[in-house]
Amino acid sequence: MARPDDRAPDQLRPVRFQRGWLDHAEGSVLIEFGGTRVLCAASVQDSVPRWRRDSGQGWVTAEYAMLPRATNTRNDRESVKGRLGGRTQEISRLIGRSVRACLDFKALGENTVQLDCDVLQADGGTRTAAITGAYVALADAVAWMRERGLCKGDPLIASVAAVSVGVIDGQPRLDLCYEEDVTAQTDMNVVCTGDGRFVEVQGTAEGAPFDRAELDALLELAAGGCAELTALQNEVLAR
Amino acid sequence: MARPDDRAPDQLRPVRFQRGWLDHAEGSVLIEFGGTRVLCAASVQDSVPRWRRDSGQGWVTAEYAMLPRATNTRNDRESVKGRLGGRTQEISRLIGRSVRACLDFKALGENTVQLDCDVLQADGGTRTAAITGAYVALADAVAWMRERGLCKGDPLIASVAAVSVGVIDGQPRLDLCYEEDVTAQTDMNVVCTGDGRFVEVQGTAEGAPFDRAELDALLELAAGGCAELTALQNEVLAR
Amino acid sequence: MARPDDRAPDQLRPVRFQRGWLDHAEGSVLIEFGGTRVLCAASVQDSVPRWRRDSGQGWVTAEYAMLPRATNTRNDRESVKGRLGGRTQEISRLIGRSVRACLDFKALGENTVQLDCDVLQADGGTRTAAITGAYVALADAVAWMRERGLCKGDPLIASVAAVSVGVIDGQPRLDLCYEEDVTAQTDMNVVCTGDGRFVEVQGTAEGAPFDRAELDALLELAAGGCAELTALQNEVLAR
Amino acid sequence: MARPDDRAPDQLRPVRFQRGWLDHAEGSVLIEFGGTRVLCAASVQDSVPRWRRDSGQGWVTAEYAMLPRATNTRNDRESVKGRLGGRTQEISRLIGRSVRACLDFKALGENTVQLDCDVLQADGGTRTAAITGAYVALADAVAWMRERGLCKGDPLIASVAAVSVGVIDGQPRLDLCYEEDVTAQTDMNVVCTGDGRFVEVQGTAEGAPFDRAELDALLELAAGGCAELTALQNEVLAR
Amino acid sequence: MARPDDRAPDQLRPVRFQRGWLDHAEGSVLIEFGGTRVLCAASVQDSVPRWRRDSGQGWVTAEYAMLPRATNTRNDRESVKGRLGGRTQEISRLIGRSVRACLDFKALGENTVQLDCDVLQADGGTRTAAITGAYVALADAVAWMRERGLCKGDPLIASVAAVSVGVIDGQPRLDLCYEEDVTAQTDMNVVCTGDGRFVEVQGTAEGAPFDRAELDALLELAAGGCAELTALQNEVLAR
Amino acid sequence: MARPDDRAPDQLRPVRFQRGWLDHAEGSVLIEFGGTRVLCAASVQDSVPRWRRDSGQGWVTAEYAMLPRATNTRNDRESVKGRLGGRTQEISRLIGRSVRACLDFKALGENTVQLDCDVLQADGGTRTAAITGAYVALADAVAWMRERGLCKGDPLIASVAAVSVGVIDGQPRLDLCYEEDVTAQTDMNVVCTGDGRFVEVQGTAEGAPFDRAELDALLELAAGGCAELTALQNEVLAR
Repeated sequence: MARPDDRAPDQLRPVRFQRGWLDHAEGSVLIEFGGTRVLCAASVQDSVPRWRRDSGQGWVTAEYAMLPRATNTRNDRESVKGRLGGRTQEISRLIGRSVRACLDFKALGENTVQLDCDVLQADGGTRTAAITGAYVALADAVAWMRERGLCKGDPLIASVAAVSVGVIDGQPRLDLCYEEDVTAQTDMNVVCTGDGRFVEVQGTAEGAPFDRAELDALLELAAGGCAELTALQNEVLAR
Repeated sequence: MARPDDRAPDQLRPVRFQRGWLDHAEGSVLIEFGGTRVLCAASVQDSVPRWRRDSGQGWVTAEYAMLPRATNTRNDRESVKGRLGGRTQEISRLIGRSVRACLDFKALGENTVQLDCDVLQADGGTRTAAITGAYVALADAVAWMRERGLCKGDPLIASVAAVSVGVIDGQPRLDLCYEEDVTAQTDMNVVCTGDGRFVEVQGTAEGAPFDRAELDALLELAAGGCAELTALQNEVLAR
Repeated sequence: MARPDDRAPDQLRPVRFQRGWLDHAEGSVLIEFGGTRVLCAASVQDSVPRWRRDSGQGWVTAEYAMLPRATNTRNDRESVKGRLGGRTQEISRLIGRSVRACLDFKALGENTVQLDCDVLQADGGTRTAAITGAYVALADAVAWMRERGLCKGDPLIASVAAVSVGVIDGQPRLDLCYEEDVTAQTDMNVVCTGDGRFVEVQGTAEGAPFDRAELDALLELAAGGCAELTALQNEVLAR
Repeated sequence: MARPDDRAPDQLRPVRFQRGWLDHAEGSVLIEFGGTRVLCAASVQDSVPRWRRDSGQGWVTAEYAMLPRATNTRNDRESVKGRLGGRTQEISRLIGRSVRACLDFKALGENTVQLDCDVLQADGGTRTAAITGAYVALADAVAWMRERGLCKGDPLIASVAAVSVGVIDGQPRLDLCYEEDVTAQTDMNVVCTGDGRFVEVQGTAEGAPFDRAELDALLELAAGGCAELTALQNEVLAR
Repeated sequence: MARPDDRAPDQLRPVRFQRGWLDHAEGSVLIEFGGTRVLCAASVQDSVPRWRRDSGQGWVTAEYAMLPRATNTRNDRESVKGRLGGRTQEISRLIGRSVRACLDFKALGENTVQLDCDVLQADGGTRTAAITGAYVALADAVAWMRERGLCKGDPLIASVAAVSVGVIDGQPRLDLCYEEDVTAQTDMNVVCTGDGRFVEVQGTAEGAPFDRAELDALLELAAGGCAELTALQNEVLAR
Repeated sequence: MARPDDRAPDQLRPVRFQRGWLDHAEGSVLIEFGGTRVLCAASVQDSVPRWRRDSGQGWVTAEYAMLPRATNTRNDRESVKGRLGGRTQEISRLIGRSVRACLDFKALGENTVQLDCDVLQADGGTRTAAITGAYVALADAVAWMRERGLCKGDPLIASVAAVSVGVIDGQPRLDLCYEEDVTAQTDMNVVCTGDGRFVEVQGTAEGAPFDRAELDALLELAAGGCAELTALQNEVLAR
């Protein structure tokens, strides 16, 4: 069973980072996982949410959204509908939890980094591309802050990268494109730190329930994919 | 390190099912996991959502909510705020996916079962109690339908149960109460079918990222807890 | 014309109070008027709304809601619809006005008691059960405050109880169940203090308009029902 | 204790009806109760709400609103706030129930009359002025329909009028202006049919609870006021 | 081609101002442009929006709305729909920009004038009638403030008036009524100061695009109309 | 007075069109006016809005939005706020009216083209860039339809382009960047067809009102700018 784009089962799609895509954001990247394109922007604010005030600690938060024609057929705008969908909020929360693993909030000081991940085009794996890009935008924003002496020491204590894995026709595959995503029996999104530990593991049986062996195979595949993405992140940040 | 209620690390809290708690619902149960109490109601409708019409197949959907004083301090109502929070939607979606693993939609025919899981009191593990109770309410609603000849054959093809697990002070523990939940380094919710396969695995590093060994220990613990809950579900449904 | 449950026209349904149903609320009761079950919770906050600040006076407010499957057929959630219905707001306001008759706000000090009345099952008379239960939860919350020295003197200056009355087939009846409620020509909700005076009188001609004689008969019946409920409240609070 | 405008306790404020104030509405009146001015418009639609279809019966519904500067100090618009307040919905529902007492829905046929009552200036008694005016607009709309043969027979089977009464400094008074309304111990709104029967009685203890004698005095006063308003309605409709 | 009401192409409809139509507003006028009636109210507040605080400068803002039966057929209320339409917001913003041209904000001091323009009946040109009336209400509110010494000097530095113009059957016409408005090929709203300069020019090709000659003819016509309206405003304010 | 980027007063910023930027949309272009970048997508649907059904005619509609970090400082998302701002709706309506000038709706048949204009980066002139790009996306979508025989004849009867003009320090200038936009005394947006006629003229005095001579100078400048943009559109579409 060949993959739609003839990749090996454990092969990522072409990954591309365009750092500094926005002129004004303190950090920004246009990340591509194949046909999936997500614009990640990091905005620095010299304040924290009300519940965090006078704690001496900073905060990082994230919002995910999709342009109406990012997909094959057009979706109505959530701003027009007047409410956020459950999927949007779920992914925003996932990205937020993931990037919070990167930071020492005391070193960040009472500043907030707001990450905006807007999907310009969707071809599967938008949330994992968003997390992988968000880290790069965050790293640039932290560097921007450090240049200006806005932090105490280095708040960036870890990197995160994320990838989707799934079982299609019984075969575990890495980094599913949309065509694969809709047919997967099992679908898992995994977020790892640069040193290979797990921040989030979210596995869902779309069709039949999965057993422990399948779960283990998927975790293995995802850990490898995240390691590759970590290397790509380091490379682009080193430029 | 003793647990707040002196349980063994792999011990569930007392679980109690009050079947038929509501007079009108086609299926209902008031489920308790220790101090957590969730009222689960299953409502049968002889129609399906628009996108499902003329497919010959049924549907099941779920909504989760919490009463304002279910918790230690009062929370504002989402109906008053005029919008559903992200957590509410996320859990509603999780319950929906979980119970969909129980049904053969062709056998269900063009009927919808709507599951409502309302948390009357919260002491940790509300989503897992909700899923575990929702299955019982669903089973009763399906029996109600079968008595009336509304299904073709038996739509109930699997059972589901769910439990939370987490690492506290380095120790993996089963079925966290609220006090444990807020201090857990890693928090995982696992949904299993009655035959021990996985429907959902959602693990989150609340503090430090977790490694594969921790993940394996938690999965083991959760699988055991779900098996116990399955036995309790079978027992209460056999009455 | 017998009543559906063979009660005498001036007879209440079985009334049951489960005090302290919630572990965390400062006052709580699960009240039942026959098949109607309302969970009433009183939450104490050591602040008052903005318009009340620096007045030296406290406040009490109430919110009423119904679970989606409290009724024969399921109703959509107001949180999902994104707006409160008129009926919900009307009843919340009625409960709030009723319990405000119980309190000396100066003695309460700048504290707020928030009453939440959630209908778990509805069989007619939900608003009157809610008011009758809310008073018990309020009394417990005030006792909780007094034990902690949070009030100046005793803020509880009156009790309130409420009951519905209506004319069915020309016969005035006390405490209508749902089946009676939908067929009543005239429907009235009456809130009385423990000493027999009126706090609210809300009478509506559902069918033909009513004359003064009917109105007088209904007021008489309601006053008697409220007196009985007052006795039951006193008994349960004396335990 | 003189009244602010030196009226006798049982005297209405000057009442003025300007019929046909709008060019397009099928019925309309600008009604004044002293300084209170309400524009009542009746719109005829040749359809009924979904739940009423194929019943052969019509419907009448009402909406109440207030312009932002109808009052002493400006109120924010509900359209800008994005939600209807509880008071607005409560009064809209009251007006709707009141005018429904006027109609034989079978004779109306499957038509809807929508009544809009917009308070242009408020000086107490806006809901009672709205009901009293709404009847006149409704009568004109029904006449408009009958001229065009849109009804079967005469759907207008009763008239309604409404007035507020209250106790100020121990004295029962008719048709309270704003200054009296805010100081009333007891406040009651009464809706009567032209033949003197009651459609709605809504009494509220704003201060101390009221006893049966006070209630009786207020009902007496209100019934007299409604009779006077009925005579004025008949007079203006006879022109 | 005669106009529906036989006016000359450059003739305004009868214009009528009823100053002080409201008892409480600091300035108010019921303005009529033929069948179009707009109630304009100016409310003075001794504060400014947050972003304007401590600037020593005042602010003026405007809200436009239409009663549901102002038009031939009834429109649903925006308060009931829960959201403001684009047209409503666009016109509110236009009125706000227009009246801001009238004021010296330093002389106004840290006060806000809120203008409410509510269309009671619509027959074309509601936004231009609203602007023309809003100026009169504003002038009265400023006079009210000056009498009380709330301003520094005279904040009223200009007057504004507005009129619509359009091309119907190739003929440029002034002050379109509804019947003309819906058939106009080109439709323009022009706001001028009393000294004949432009504050806003908004021209739209409803049918075929328009050329420079048509544009010039319309601007000429509008400037003349605004000059006439300015004279009428001065006259009514001089009374 | 040099311009911030040293352009001549009548000189456009560098304009760049990236046609086919999206893989799925029937027409798309990423348009840049200097630092302003707008992604325009045209989506074809084989249906029309309800009010247009069975007319034999098509429709085109537009939505404008801005990413949160398109600007110097971050703006909150309208989807999160739960309501569309007035500016957003105003610009969406403007784009819709502008592109409607391009189409023969009978030739389009009962199809709808939905244009989405999302501002990825904003540096002044976002609405004019959106209109200019929307035409290109629309032209591609129409070509896509014609290839598939979905239209009757050629629905594209005109092109539109748009540009902003303004007076800065007394000097009329073409195509304002953000820095100029905020300091302009007068600000005008002009939409022209390819043959030089006007579709929209929207001029606003931001500071002092403007006279006829200024207006004429701005119209002249804008017409020239639109002609240049038309040439660029034709060039990119000819590729």
